[in-house]
Amino acid sequence: MDIEKVNSMDFGEFVDVFGNVIERCPLIAAAVRSQRPFSDLEDLEQHFFAFTDALPQSGQEGVLRRHPDLAGRELQRGELSAESRREQSAAGLTSLGAAERLWLAEPNAQYRARFGFPFALAARLCDRAAVPRERRRS
Amino acid sequence: MDIEKVNSMDFGEFVDVFGNVIERCPLIAAAVRSQRPFSDLEDLEQHFFAFTDALPQSGQEGVLRRHPDLAGRELQRGELSAESRREQSAAGLTSLGAAERLWLAEPNAQYRARFGFPFALAARLCDRAAVPRERRRS
Repeated sequence: MDIEKVNSMDFGEFVDVFGNVIERCPLIAAAVRSQRPFSDLEDLEQHFFAFTDALPQSGQEGVLRRHPDLAGRELQRGELSAESRREQSAAGLTSLGAAERLWLAEPNAQYRARFGFPFALAARLCDRAAVPRERRRS
Repeated sequence: MDIEKVNSMDFGEFVDVFGNVIERCPLIAAAVRSQRPFSDLEDLEQHFFAFTDALPQSGQEGVLRRHPDLAGRELQRGELSAESRREQSAAGLTSLGAAERLWLAEPNAQYRARFGFPFALAARLCDRAAVPRERRRS
């Protein structure tokens, strides 16, 4: 994507394109747009990091809370964002059997109960081969 | 609404109910939930104010940018949030004629061009009687 094109987007278009860079937090894209013009895509990315890092802790927890569970309720209900759906699909999470979904549901719930936000992970970096064989059988 | 009930909501439910208190910025509800328990609804409201006030200026501009135009594109496309739709409907903005819509479109565009975010107003506080008669005719 051409940075000149990004810099010339009106804010509706900017939020349409970048609104889900931070999962289901389009406010952050709407805020980052104030920092135009961006020198290149890395500069744009840095502004996303900077804004998120500068949020108070409650805001950073809020960002995590907006993430869907892996193979969780949002996936079952067809409510994943396009980006999350692609990620979870690429990681095989959209084609799990009932037993595998159940196996994931419990640690998801435990993590949530302990920390107050979902276990968030870039699922496309986590293919099934990364799950130890003995745990996959359990 | 009972504050005990609010305090006992899990975060999915909390964001479902309060996610649009700040228009199309569910991140803020997701952040505010960290401040539980709330002593009463006013206390809850104060946390929304406090989080929004503490955002950097770019974030506050982002909040404004997430608002729809009055009688604008989102209304035409049926993309308003339920809350905005109710507000704009109560203010008569959903039943404007083409000439009235056009009359509103130009100052909306001028405001946006000048400030970089839409003209945001609690539409339910602005019925048509508030528009001076001579301007309604123009």
